[in-house]
Amino acid sequence: VKYHVDGDLVPAEDASVSIRDRGFRYGDAAFETLRAYGGSLFKWGAHADRLRRTCDALGFAADVPNATDLRARIRETLSANNLDDAYVRLAVTRGVLPGKLTPAIDVDPTVVVEVKPLPRGGVESDPVWDGPARVRTADTRKIPDASIPADAKTHNYLNGILARLELQGTQADESLMLDGEGYVTEGATSNLFFVADDALCTPSESRPLLPGITRDVVLDLARDEGIPVNTGWYDLGDVHRADEAFLTNTTWEIRPLEAIDRVDIGGGPITDLLSRLFDERVERRCYDSDQLRESDR
Amino acid sequence: VKYHVDGDLVPAEDASVSIRDRGFRYGDAAFETLRAYGGSLFKWGAHADRLRRTCDALGFAADVPNATDLRARIRETLSANNLDDAYVRLAVTRGVLPGKLTPAIDVDPTVVVEVKPLPRGGVESDPVWDGPARVRTADTRKIPDASIPADAKTHNYLNGILARLELQGTQADESLMLDGEGYVTEGATSNLFFVADDALCTPSESRPLLPGITRDVVLDLARDEGIPVNTGWYDLGDVHRADEAFLTNTTWEIRPLEAIDRVDIGGGPITDLLSRLFDERVERRCYDSDQLRESDR
Repeated sequence: VKYHVDGDLVPAEDASVSIRDRGFRYGDAAFETLRAYGGSLFKWGAHADRLRRTCDALGFAADVPNATDLRARIRETLSANNLDDAYVRLAVTRGVLPGKLTPAIDVDPTVVVEVKPLPRGGVESDPVWDGPARVRTADTRKIPDASIPADAKTHNYLNGILARLELQGTQADESLMLDGEGYVTEGATSNLFFVADDALCTPSESRPLLPGITRDVVLDLARDEGIPVNTGWYDLGDVHRADEAFLTNTTWEIRPLEAIDRVDIGGGPITDLLSRLFDERVERRCYDSDQLRESDR
Repeated sequence: VKYHVDGDLVPAEDASVSIRDRGFRYGDAAFETLRAYGGSLFKWGAHADRLRRTCDALGFAADVPNATDLRARIRETLSANNLDDAYVRLAVTRGVLPGKLTPAIDVDPTVVVEVKPLPRGGVESDPVWDGPARVRTADTRKIPDASIPADAKTHNYLNGILARLELQGTQADESLMLDGEGYVTEGATSNLFFVADDALCTPSESRPLLPGITRDVVLDLARDEGIPVNTGWYDLGDVHRADEAFLTNTTWEIRPLEAIDRVDIGGGPITDLLSRLFDERVERRCYDSDQLRESDR
C-alpha cells in the first residue's frame, strides 16, 4: 500500500508528518473523503470546491495547490495501488510553521492522500454498510458556527468523537447531534433525512451542520423526481415521528435508519426510490458534468 | 536537536507520526506545555494531573503511561539536548487505530516530547515576552462546554487559531474570547486577570475556559498575600474599566496587558507585586511540594 505525502508516493508504513506540522499539533487542516467508482472520482468538482472553502475559512486557501494538481495526486495514488473502486481521503494541512499559535503569513501546506479498496456497490450490488443504522441522540452538542463554522471540514473532530464515545455499551453505531438551541443538526459523520407527510425533510444549512456532497445529490434527485423537499429547523420529536429516515455520507451513500433512541423508524418507499436513483446516478456516470468542470479548472 | 517520539529519542527532522495516527487525523490528543527552570519541571504534578483529566475526558486515560514514565521521557529529552531552562511540550494521542471515527477499546497511545531552550527569566532577569500584551476581543466565540469541555487541553485548537487570525493587520498579539452568552472567558493561549476596587478578578471556571496552572499559582500567591480575589462572570465592560490587567500562561508567566480594544489599561502595583512573588516562587523552588508528590506517583 502506498500513500501520497507532501508530493511523494511512499509506503504506508513510512507515511508520516512532522510532529511540528500544524495538522498534528492543532488539527489545523482541511480534508475531504471521496469515492472512486470504476476509476472516476465521484463529484470531484464539488469536493474540490468544498476543500477550498474550508481552507478559506482557515485562511490559507491561496497557498493550497489547485484542484488539477490535487486530482493528479489522487490519481497517482489510486494508480500506484491498482485501485478503481476506492475510498479516498485527501487532507491539506497548514504545514510546519514556527511554534506559535498565530499562523505565519507564508504557508507551505502538507498534502496527504490515503486510499483503500471499497467495492463499488450500486445497482444489483451490496451496499458498503453492514446493516441499517441504529442511532442515539448524543448529550454532546454540535459546536456553534460562532465558535468554528460547521461547514468547514477540518481535523478538529473531537466534537463528533465525544458524541460517538457516548455509544459505548449500546447497540447504536451513529450519534445524532443537536445544537445549543436543541434543534437537530446531523450525525457525527452523516447527514440526516426523514420523511413526514410524504415530503423529504432534512435540517437546514442555517443550523450548524456540514452539508454533505451526498446530501446535495439526494436533494437534487428528490427535486428531479418531484418529491416535495423541506429544509427546516426540526426538533427530536419531528424525527421520532417520521415515517422513514436515512443517513447519507460519501461512504455509506444512502443508509436506512432502523431506529433512533429505541424508536423504530426504518426505510420505506421514498428511501428505496432515492437509493435506486442514487445507484443509477453512479452507474450512468451522470457526474460527467463535474468531470467537464474539472478540465476547466 | 532531538525529540522523544513513541518511546525513542529521534533527531528533530525524523520526529514524525503516522498519517493514520488519530492525533493527526482528528486532533484526538491531549497535551501540556511546561517549563523547566534550572533542570526542574515547574508544577509537574499539576500538569500530570491535568493531562490525565484531559485523557479521561477523551476516554483513554487508562491506557496512558503513568506520570513517572512520562516524566522520565521529558527528562531524557532535556538531557539529550543539554537543556536546563526550557520550554517542554508533552503530547499523548489516541494512537493509530482502525480507520473509523468511533475509537476502538484498546488504545496504544503515541507519546511525543518536544523541547526548546527558553531562558529562565525570574528575579532580576528579563521576561520571555517582548513587551506587554496588546489584546483585541475576537468575534470567534469560545466553544461551549456542552460541545467540548473547555478544561480538556487537546489538539483541537482551531477555535483559538480562528480568534488569532482575526488579529491580522492589527497591532494586537492576543485575542480575548467571549462565550456564547457574552461573558469573558480567556485569551487564545492565556488566562485573564484584572484589578478592580483593589481586588484581583479572573473569570470563574464555571464559564468555558481552561484553568491554567499559572492561573492557579497566581491565585494562591494572591490569597497568601491577603489580596482580595474574585472569580466571577464578567462582561467586556468590567475588563475595559479595570485599573490593571495581565495575562498568564506557562510561557509568559505574568504578562501585563497594555491595552484591549484600544482601551489602555496596563499593569500596576498588584501586577508588579504578583510578578515579583511569582519570580521568587520559581527561584526559591517553592514547588518542592510538587516534586515530593512526583516521587509518590
